[in-house]
Amino acid sequence: MTVAYPFTAIVGQDDMKLALAIAAVDPGIGGVLVFGERGTGKSTTIRALAQLLPKITAVKDCPYQCSPDASVKNSCPKCQDVTKSKTHKIPIPVVDLPLGATEDRVLGALDIEKAIHNGEKAFQPGLLAAANRGFLYIDEVNLLEDHIVDALLDVAASGTNVVEREGLSIRHPARFVLVGSGNPEEGELRPQLLDRFGLSLDVRTPRDIPTRVEIIKMRDAFDLDPEGFSKRFSRKEGALRRKIDAAREVVETVDIPAEVLEKAAELCLALGTDGLRGELTLIRSARALAALEGENTASLEHLKHVALFVLRHRLRRDPMDESSADARVERTIATVLP
Amino acid sequence: MTVAYPFTAIVGQDDMKLALAIAAVDPGIGGVLVFGERGTGKSTTIRALAQLLPKITAVKDCPYQCSPDASVKNSCPKCQDVTKSKTHKIPIPVVDLPLGATEDRVLGALDIEKAIHNGEKAFQPGLLAAANRGFLYIDEVNLLEDHIVDALLDVAASGTNVVEREGLSIRHPARFVLVGSGNPEEGELRPQLLDRFGLSLDVRTPRDIPTRVEIIKMRDAFDLDPEGFSKRFSRKEGALRRKIDAAREVVETVDIPAEVLEKAAELCLALGTDGLRGELTLIRSARALAALEGENTASLEHLKHVALFVLRHRLRRDPMDESSADARVERTIATVLP
Amino acid sequence: MTVAYPFTAIVGQDDMKLALAIAAVDPGIGGVLVFGERGTGKSTTIRALAQLLPKITAVKDCPYQCSPDASVKNSCPKCQDVTKSKTHKIPIPVVDLPLGATEDRVLGALDIEKAIHNGEKAFQPGLLAAANRGFLYIDEVNLLEDHIVDALLDVAASGTNVVEREGLSIRHPARFVLVGSGNPEEGELRPQLLDRFGLSLDVRTPRDIPTRVEIIKMRDAFDLDPEGFSKRFSRKEGALRRKIDAAREVVETVDIPAEVLEKAAELCLALGTDGLRGELTLIRSARALAALEGENTASLEHLKHVALFVLRHRLRRDPMDESSADARVERTIATVLP
Amino acid sequence: MTVAYPFTAIVGQDDMKLALAIAAVDPGIGGVLVFGERGTGKSTTIRALAQLLPKITAVKDCPYQCSPDASVKNSCPKCQDVTKSKTHKIPIPVVDLPLGATEDRVLGALDIEKAIHNGEKAFQPGLLAAANRGFLYIDEVNLLEDHIVDALLDVAASGTNVVEREGLSIRHPARFVLVGSGNPEEGELRPQLLDRFGLSLDVRTPRDIPTRVEIIKMRDAFDLDPEGFSKRFSRKEGALRRKIDAAREVVETVDIPAEVLEKAAELCLALGTDGLRGELTLIRSARALAALEGENTASLEHLKHVALFVLRHRLRRDPMDESSADARVERTIATVLP
Amino acid sequence: MTVAYPFTAIVGQDDMKLALAIAAVDPGIGGVLVFGERGTGKSTTIRALAQLLPKITAVKDCPYQCSPDASVKNSCPKCQDVTKSKTHKIPIPVVDLPLGATEDRVLGALDIEKAIHNGEKAFQPGLLAAANRGFLYIDEVNLLEDHIVDALLDVAASGTNVVEREGLSIRHPARFVLVGSGNPEEGELRPQLLDRFGLSLDVRTPRDIPTRVEIIKMRDAFDLDPEGFSKRFSRKEGALRRKIDAAREVVETVDIPAEVLEKAAELCLALGTDGLRGELTLIRSARALAALEGENTASLEHLKHVALFVLRHRLRRDPMDESSADARVERTIATVLP
Amino acid sequence: MTVAYPFTAIVGQDDMKLALAIAAVDPGIGGVLVFGERGTGKSTTIRALAQLLPKITAVKDCPYQCSPDASVKNSCPKCQDVTKSKTHKIPIPVVDLPLGATEDRVLGALDIEKAIHNGEKAFQPGLLAAANRGFLYIDEVNLLEDHIVDALLDVAASGTNVVEREGLSIRHPARFVLVGSGNPEEGELRPQLLDRFGLSLDVRTPRDIPTRVEIIKMRDAFDLDPEGFSKRFSRKEGALRRKIDAAREVVETVDIPAEVLEKAAELCLALGTDGLRGELTLIRSARALAALEGENTASLEHLKHVALFVLRHRLRRDPMDESSADARVERTIATVLP
Repeated sequence: MTVAYPFTAIVGQDDMKLALAIAAVDPGIGGVLVFGERGTGKSTTIRALAQLLPKITAVKDCPYQCSPDASVKNSCPKCQDVTKSKTHKIPIPVVDLPLGATEDRVLGALDIEKAIHNGEKAFQPGLLAAANRGFLYIDEVNLLEDHIVDALLDVAASGTNVVEREGLSIRHPARFVLVGSGNPEEGELRPQLLDRFGLSLDVRTPRDIPTRVEIIKMRDAFDLDPEGFSKRFSRKEGALRRKIDAAREVVETVDIPAEVLEKAAELCLALGTDGLRGELTLIRSARALAALEGENTASLEHLKHVALFVLRHRLRRDPMDESSADARVERTIATVLP
Repeated sequence: MTVAYPFTAIVGQDDMKLALAIAAVDPGIGGVLVFGERGTGKSTTIRALAQLLPKITAVKDCPYQCSPDASVKNSCPKCQDVTKSKTHKIPIPVVDLPLGATEDRVLGALDIEKAIHNGEKAFQPGLLAAANRGFLYIDEVNLLEDHIVDALLDVAASGTNVVEREGLSIRHPARFVLVGSGNPEEGELRPQLLDRFGLSLDVRTPRDIPTRVEIIKMRDAFDLDPEGFSKRFSRKEGALRRKIDAAREVVETVDIPAEVLEKAAELCLALGTDGLRGELTLIRSARALAALEGENTASLEHLKHVALFVLRHRLRRDPMDESSADARVERTIATVLP
Repeated sequence: MTVAYPFTAIVGQDDMKLALAIAAVDPGIGGVLVFGERGTGKSTTIRALAQLLPKITAVKDCPYQCSPDASVKNSCPKCQDVTKSKTHKIPIPVVDLPLGATEDRVLGALDIEKAIHNGEKAFQPGLLAAANRGFLYIDEVNLLEDHIVDALLDVAASGTNVVEREGLSIRHPARFVLVGSGNPEEGELRPQLLDRFGLSLDVRTPRDIPTRVEIIKMRDAFDLDPEGFSKRFSRKEGALRRKIDAAREVVETVDIPAEVLEKAAELCLALGTDGLRGELTLIRSARALAALEGENTASLEHLKHVALFVLRHRLRRDPMDESSADARVERTIATVLP
Repeated sequence: MTVAYPFTAIVGQDDMKLALAIAAVDPGIGGVLVFGERGTGKSTTIRALAQLLPKITAVKDCPYQCSPDASVKNSCPKCQDVTKSKTHKIPIPVVDLPLGATEDRVLGALDIEKAIHNGEKAFQPGLLAAANRGFLYIDEVNLLEDHIVDALLDVAASGTNVVEREGLSIRHPARFVLVGSGNPEEGELRPQLLDRFGLSLDVRTPRDIPTRVEIIKMRDAFDLDPEGFSKRFSRKEGALRRKIDAAREVVETVDIPAEVLEKAAELCLALGTDGLRGELTLIRSARALAALEGENTASLEHLKHVALFVLRHRLRRDPMDESSADARVERTIATVLP
Repeated sequence: MTVAYPFTAIVGQDDMKLALAIAAVDPGIGGVLVFGERGTGKSTTIRALAQLLPKITAVKDCPYQCSPDASVKNSCPKCQDVTKSKTHKIPIPVVDLPLGATEDRVLGALDIEKAIHNGEKAFQPGLLAAANRGFLYIDEVNLLEDHIVDALLDVAASGTNVVEREGLSIRHPARFVLVGSGNPEEGELRPQLLDRFGLSLDVRTPRDIPTRVEIIKMRDAFDLDPEGFSKRFSRKEGALRRKIDAAREVVETVDIPAEVLEKAAELCLALGTDGLRGELTLIRSARALAALEGENTASLEHLKHVALFVLRHRLRRDPMDESSADARVERTIATVLP
Repeated sequence: MTVAYPFTAIVGQDDMKLALAIAAVDPGIGGVLVFGERGTGKSTTIRALAQLLPKITAVKDCPYQCSPDASVKNSCPKCQDVTKSKTHKIPIPVVDLPLGATEDRVLGALDIEKAIHNGEKAFQPGLLAAANRGFLYIDEVNLLEDHIVDALLDVAASGTNVVEREGLSIRHPARFVLVGSGNPEEGELRPQLLDRFGLSLDVRTPRDIPTRVEIIKMRDAFDLDPEGFSKRFSRKEGALRRKIDAAREVVETVDIPAEVLEKAAELCLALGTDGLRGELTLIRSARALAALEGENTASLEHLKHVALFVLRHRLRRDPMDESSADARVERTIATVLP
């Protein structure tokens, strides 16, 4: 209902904008983890992106906002059974996952009220239901309990939320872009969790006065007249919206040449990442970037562009020098992809 | 029902009085955090301010004391639907948030009684509802659980309380001035929380005997005859009330010259505050102060006047010397705004 | 129902007897904190005082034992509405607050039984209701949970218990003299709590044999024939009862000369007590003592007499030498009030 | 129902037998605390004593086994109202307080079942009710939670159990001899608790073979034929039973000469016990011993006999040498009562 | 239902087999504690013994499997009232007590379901009921919570389970052989608990290859054809069954000469065991062994044979050398019973 | 419903594939524990194996998917009573045991809903029911609570789940292959638990680029067209399926020559494994491997092939050098089976 700050009016923060766009093109990449101080506009940017994206058509009264055109596999149990339903246009959902949220609240749970009054086992959908087809934003993900993050990442990877307890057996679509933010000064993420985020990046406050004044002026102008300010950016917003939309259509058809595959493997081997999730994410991200740029083959350039996003959080901790993770990744990228 | 000590009869404590007045003019600034020993009249001052401000017109039986003239966005769900309601005049609410308060009590929760007896999911409004259009006072905020403070600051910033759980989906206005008090000797606030308070200041007990005797005599006189004592200050109270009222009307139209913006950015950069919240609060506070002084442009003087309030709690801890925060801020202000 | 040991038959313990009498004259002083070993008759003394004081007239079946003559502000919601009620004479209540008591039990809570059976939100009054117009005794207050002590001191200071939770909104009178006992060897009180007790003192077991034998003989005589023993002291009891009663009538009219005010401020400043609660309590205690002695002006002598009670627990801990608190206060009193 | 080992068939253990007999004569002394290794027959002895004492006449179906002849003050609420009730003879109750017992189970609590089904607040009597007029035995009292021990000692001292919570307000007689056992190697008792036990003593396994063989033979004989074995001791049992019964009748009339009082005070002062509970217990114990011996004046010999029982657990811990407590007491007794 | 491995087919492990047989003859001895590594067949042996023993005749539908011929004292409340009931033959129960079992589950508790639906306080029998007349096996007894072990040992000693809580007052027979196993490397037993087990022993895996191959071949043969394998041992099983049965009949009549008593006391005194439980268990075990061997007098040889079982876990920990407990006992036995 | 990656399309990982196949042939071996980094395809492999195995015929609506041909002993209580039921073909179940799962959820529990509404004690089957006849997969088994792992291993060993609590007494078949995965860097397993897993192995990511590219290409091809990709492997899948099926038929008839038995004992003795579980598992695994290879006698070669799987996790921790466990086992194998 409230107007969000326009995505294209955000000053700087190109990395965060690109990573979010890539994740919006292929939600299967596994979300974006944004590190950095508070007040750098993480929450603003994600809300801005959600507003930028086109409204979606959803079945009315469906708590999972199912698409009327979804395959059975991507529909909730009720929408699977119904052939024609009333639909409406809704903005892409952005769901905030508060720190204290219980597993019941996140995954959904038995509807106690119905259980008590009607003696019926109904499912009370949770935040994952509300986030279907949209974004799930977790501020300070490093303060969240591990078992919740674990559950989230499982669902984010599979696109399906399976709840089997208290005699319930529910399976509903839960495809969303997971965006976490964290301040590494306040508590680390377990390596297993880090590894399951698709992309990560650092954001910083700009350090030059003209940029800061620019940001504050823009923000102030927006605060005084949100609608008027937004109108000034509507063309830019439309252009980017169409670009992302087009990329979503074609991303599965983008080619990965053998050379790109080999270089991806070479990168991961050189950095000693665990397992093969690094390579798979490099490939998918390069493909999404190529799609965003309107090309149908992913190039070494695409790979190089996404490599830091994909690899920087997959390094084993080097007990000698924690801070050098980025430097190590950058050096390796420069060597492998000169 | 009880008469509070008059605001204008408070001896000294000019900083606290000014900061509260600024926050009363623009509640969006993010509240005031008052540090200092017990017994310095923090609670008295906030109650005094609330009594000073004019009574508000509220919809009768509305648990959020909605204004009958509020826009839909600033009304509770029920008041949005009703066009004409009975109203009454009520004092500005001052709500105390007790240390042991649960999240349910603060944010509101499912009304269990109605759920059990009528099988209906009704919302039981919490302290945030009770504080709408008034003040929320938290004594010893550093002893409060972080997740509660977090929730409070979120609502204070947005002016809206959103409760989505146990099958409830409620959104009601919750615009209040948050006032926290704390004794830094008893437990620190997380930097993230500090950063989200708008203004902060230290209060001290006066150290000269005449002032102390003056305060005790005034207090004793008030205790023996509250009504009579208060009458002596009614003219002063009226004058200040009108000044704040006028400032509230015009605050959004106050101009911020480019020079003020640049100096604000320069200050924050020099002090290395996280993000841009420091600058934004400097601007809003300078604007509120200008409005209080009846001017329609914020000057460098206004900026300088509010800078310590805004910046002193946004410094990163200097492991060398914790106590020098104020000194560092003052030195920087003196350099940037000579 | 059981006969308590007569107050005037207590051998020695003059400080404890005086401090309790002062607190009985002006309950607003904030109660008495008695430090000392077990077995020094703390509980006996408080019960003795309660028995000494005249029975009170209370509304029948009122759980707050409201006075039929109380102003609306000092009546419970039900007694406010009723103009004429049956009354009875009852002893002044002495309520023990057990260590494990919950907040619900202390403050009162929703009456679960009525909630379940009648679907009605009734208030189940707590120990504070039971203590209205009497004494609330907490043995080993240093072992009580802080949040309970906090709540108690708030109510003791304001004379009103406000319960706002679980959909209840109750406000009932709770004026009582709070008496806490503690053994400093077993756990310290937080300075904030110390500061909010009005008076404090140390009790010791007498160390000379004749006094000890005297006490045991008296106690033994009482144990063998409580009624007979008590009759021997009925005249003394009556005299003291009338003295306290008279003091209660006039205490508000006792004058505080400027010199007394200044000396009070000088004392607190010299000792560096936090805030101004020290001064205010000095003044009120001196006034209560003057009233007890039948005078209508508080003198420097009165101030000097109460100063140790008021100030000894308000000193900041001196990391060098904890045990010297009394010595420091006494030295300062001797200097300021020679 | 099961036959207990006869009290008079116990080989040795004279201290334990005497202390229990004293406590049986005057339950107000505050119970007996028995220190020592497992397997020394503590539990056997207490059961033996209970069996020795005459059966009591109790009101039928009274959960407190009220005496039909008790004064109103010593009757439960129901027995107070009824003038003539059916009675029966029952053995003196011996109640074991298990380590994990909750406060509800010990003190009694709301009868949840009745509350749910009949909507009525009934009291479910606890172990203290079951122990009325008998013995309450706590094995390993040093492992019991302090608040439970505290509650027990309060009730043991007053003879009345007051339960005021969950809307209940019950007061029932709970006069019992409290017997605790503990192994000091496994966890100490708080000094406050120690101080409130009346008597204490150490038991040891005999170290000479003939005594040990004697004990085992007796025990084996009892195990093979309990009834036959017991019959052999019935005369001895009867004699001791009559002696204790007589002592109970006259104990309140036993004289305490001034010299005994002074020596008691001298003892406590010399040992530096806290408060005056030491002296009072010395007096009562000497009186009970005199009564047991059929005399109507307590002598210095009686005092000397009970002094170690009364004083050994009331010493402040001497940080130098914990084990010397008994030695210190014995030395002092020898000095004061040569 | 499943066939257990035959007791007489167990290769080696003579100590464990003998100790279990002794405990089966006289369950009052207090159970067997088996120390040793996992995989040494502890659980197999206890199940084998239970299968070996003759089926018992039990009242049908009695949850305590009462014997139709039991005395009133050894019957459950229901079986006490009924004179003739239907009976059936059932195998001797072997009940496993799982590590996480609650006290309710072990001792029995209020039947919540009946309480809710019928408003009736029925008893839900626990594992102790299920184990009546059989074996209760606790694997890793050193990991069990102390209060559970305590309760178990109490019941094992008395043969009766008394549940008095939640308004229930139940007393039912619970005579069983308690068998605990533990690995001393994983957590020690409190000395008090150790002391209350009757017998203890160590089991080890055989260290020579032929024995190991023999065991594995036997086990493999059994796994491939349980019924056929068992048949091969049915004669041996019958012989041992009759021997144990006969011993049970006569055990109470076996004589203990004075010399055996004295030597038992001498042993315990030499080892410094706490209390006299050591001696009593020595006597009972010697008697059971004599009965097993068909003799009607226990000899010094019998005493010597059981002494290590009885005494090895009753030594006070020697802070110098924990492992020498057995050596110390053996040395003492050799000295006292050369 | 979703197509899993084909087992025979997995590149490398021969050890994991072999161990799983052995466990699939003889589930009584006790499951497989897979150590190693994340991302090495553990979860993929187990799902692939489940898909490879033939669908099973199960009774319709049976929550334990009982086989219509099962013996009474291997059927659930309901299927035992019914002679002819409707059946359907279902894939072999693969059940994930989530980290936070409660014991109720794993073992099954009282169906609360039915208890409340129908007053009937019904059993709510748990994850063990769902896993009957299939696989139970526990990711990060070292993070699971010990009592859950314990319960699982008990059931896995016996093939029967016995639930006896809350008045329920259920026994249902629960035969499954337990597969646990763990990263030894994150928390060790108790030796007792390690010892009860049948087989264990380490998996690693391949370190050469061609293999990695191959894996990624295969995975990518599968992700783009699961059905098409799978079809390419259907012949291979069929061949392996038949091989495992045949082995299951004959495994019980495979011969173990004496030499193999002796060498197995020699191995265990040389390594000092606790108990005899090592030998028994060696024998069963060798037999399963022989069956897989279509032979009817287990050879020393078979023994040698499975020895590392069986023994590597059964070594006592060597405080000197933890990492050398495999080396020690390999050295011993090489010595014993040259």
